[in-house]
Parts: sequence; structure tokens; C-alpha cells
Amino acid sequence: MIKGLLSALLVLAAVSTSLGKPDKQAGKKEKRVPQTLSRGWGDELIWAQTYEEALFKSKTSNKPLMVILHLEDCPHSSALKQAFANSKELQKLADEDFILLNLVYETTDKHLSPDGQYVPRILFVDPTLTVRADITGRYSNRLYAYEPSDISLLISNMQKAKTVLKSEL
Amino acid sequence: MIKGLLSALLVLAAVSTSLGKPDKQAGKKEKRVPQTLSRGWGDELIWAQTYEEALFKSKTSNKPLMVILHLEDCPHSSALKQAFANSKELQKLADEDFILLNLVYETTDKHLSPDGQYVPRILFVDPTLTVRADITGRYSNRLYAYEPSDISLLISNMQKAKTVLKSEL
Repeated sequence: MIKGLLSALLVLAAVSTSLGKPDKQAGKKEKRVPQTLSRGWGDELIWAQTYEEALFKSKTSNKPLMVILHLEDCPHSSALKQAFANSKELQKLADEDFILLNLVYETTDKHLSPDGQYVPRILFVDPTLTVRADITGRYSNRLYAYEPSDISLLISNMQKAKTVLKSEL
Repeated sequence: MIKGLLSALLVLAAVSTSLGKPDKQAGKKEKRVPQTLSRGWGDELIWAQTYEEALFKSKTSNKPLMVILHLEDCPHSSALKQAFANSKELQKLADEDFILLNLVYETTDKHLSPDGQYVPRILFVDPTLTVRADITGRYSNRLYAYEPSDISLLISNMQKAKTVLKSEL
């Protein structure tokens, strides 16, 4: 047997509030609906499963990666999710030009939490695997947070993530 | 901007043959079916999304973790998946006593590839976060590989993963 202890677990404990929600259903006998990778952020979009997969796809497709950190039980996350899923402009842009990942657990990459771990927050990573810490929302205490009313700013930031990428090539 | 280069990408390239399959559909206009976390290994089971999430759930629930490494385009993976999904005994055991994760990308944890990276392979991790390298299939050259005819052995190994855990407590 080999010990495979991950120190990251301590970090993960910080986002454990959504944990166990699916497990509560374990005892029920009715047919379950399959879980989706989209988690409601856009059922028709293509979602990466893991951060490693998303980075690989970003690099090979030369598309920027959009990482959404959220929690299923968080009302702020749910409100943003609804606005995100309902914006046709945003969904089209996401579908055509981005590698997409939504996570309810933090990764071990500290670059994805430049100003701390909170939800919801959205970070962009360009295909050179550079976290775009310069692309921020409008809240100085939580630079990567967005509210439902910030969808236009988010779309603008997505265009920024796209444009800078192209001009750098 | 912060550099977030992952050396793991080199490892991931080894399992890249399944990549891009969803991307080919990107240009199509018809409604897409939402992607599932189960990927066909059991739509009614509860699947973890990432290895970090799975480890956390294993530790907190005190249930062993079953990790399935596979590829969507691999016929051996598909054949095992079908047998896995169709075995009621296995699905029941998985549902009741295991934290479940299926991955098409390798993780950065080398403990999950004790004798190399190949698919399909199945490893167990107990809630103390110990990879159970002692629980193997019947092929000496690929210790963690299973074929569709090995479902009974796999069920037996799942029981082993459960039993040893309990006797150690």
C-alpha cells in the first residue's frame, strides 16, 4: 500500500458546505436524474471535467479557459448561475470561444485564488497557461466576484480575454 | 499576470486520444444533450467530479473511493463500462458503499498509476487516503485492468476494499 495523502484536503475543507448534498439522496429508491457537468451553467455548452483537462484543452485548442468556482447551496452562486445561463450573448460567446470549467471544489493551484477563496468567482486562464489576474469584476474586496447585474461586465471581460490573447500571438 | 504552468500537462498528453471529441460538435446547431458525470458507468450513481472532491468525500464519509480511469474512444473501456453498468449487484454495492470517480484524464497523483498509465484501470483508495495497490485484477502485466468477464472479481475486490477498511477501524 502506498500513502497518498494530499495536503490540499485542508484547503478543500473551506468549501465543504456543498458536500453531502447528493449523498442525502442515497437512501431513496426512486430513479435519479443523471448528474450533469454543466450543473445548470449552460446545459448545451461543452464542459471540461477537471482543471487538468481544461488546461490541456485550452493549450491545444488555443482558446482561453474560463473557470467558475461556485457552490450549489450558495444563493449568490445560484443567482449568478441563472443570469449566466439565461444570457444568450454570453452562452454563445462561451460556446464559440472558450474552454469551460465549473468547480464546486477548489483546485490545488493557488493562482486560481489571487485574493482568496470565495464563491462565486470567475477567473480566466489563457492558452499559455497564464492565469489572467488582471481581468477583474467591480468589487475591490473580491476582485473576481460577479453579481447577476454584472453580466455585461462579464461579457466584456470575456471579450478582453479573447482579444488580448489574439494580439499577443 | 501569474504563470500557472503545470508540468502535469506532459503526463496528460499520454491520454489525449479522447480529446476534442466534444469539440467536433461545436459547430452544430442542434440542441445538445447535457454531458453527464457518469459517462455511462451508472447514470443513477452519485459521481464525484474531481479527485480532490472524491478524496474529501471518502475521508469525511469514511467510504472507500473507487477510481475508474478510462477513455471514451477505447473499445476495452467501452466493453468494461457496459458490463459495469449492467451488473445490478455491482451498481448496488457501488451506490451504497463507495465514493465514485471516473476520469478520462490522468491526475497528478503518481500513486494512481503504480504500474503505469493505461486504460481501463480501476484503483481503490481507502478513507485514510491510502491507495490500495494490493487490490488487483488477474493480469500480471496490467495489475489494475479488468475485462468484462472480470465483473465477479471486481465485485469481490470491492468487497475486499470494504472489509479491510472495517477491520482496520
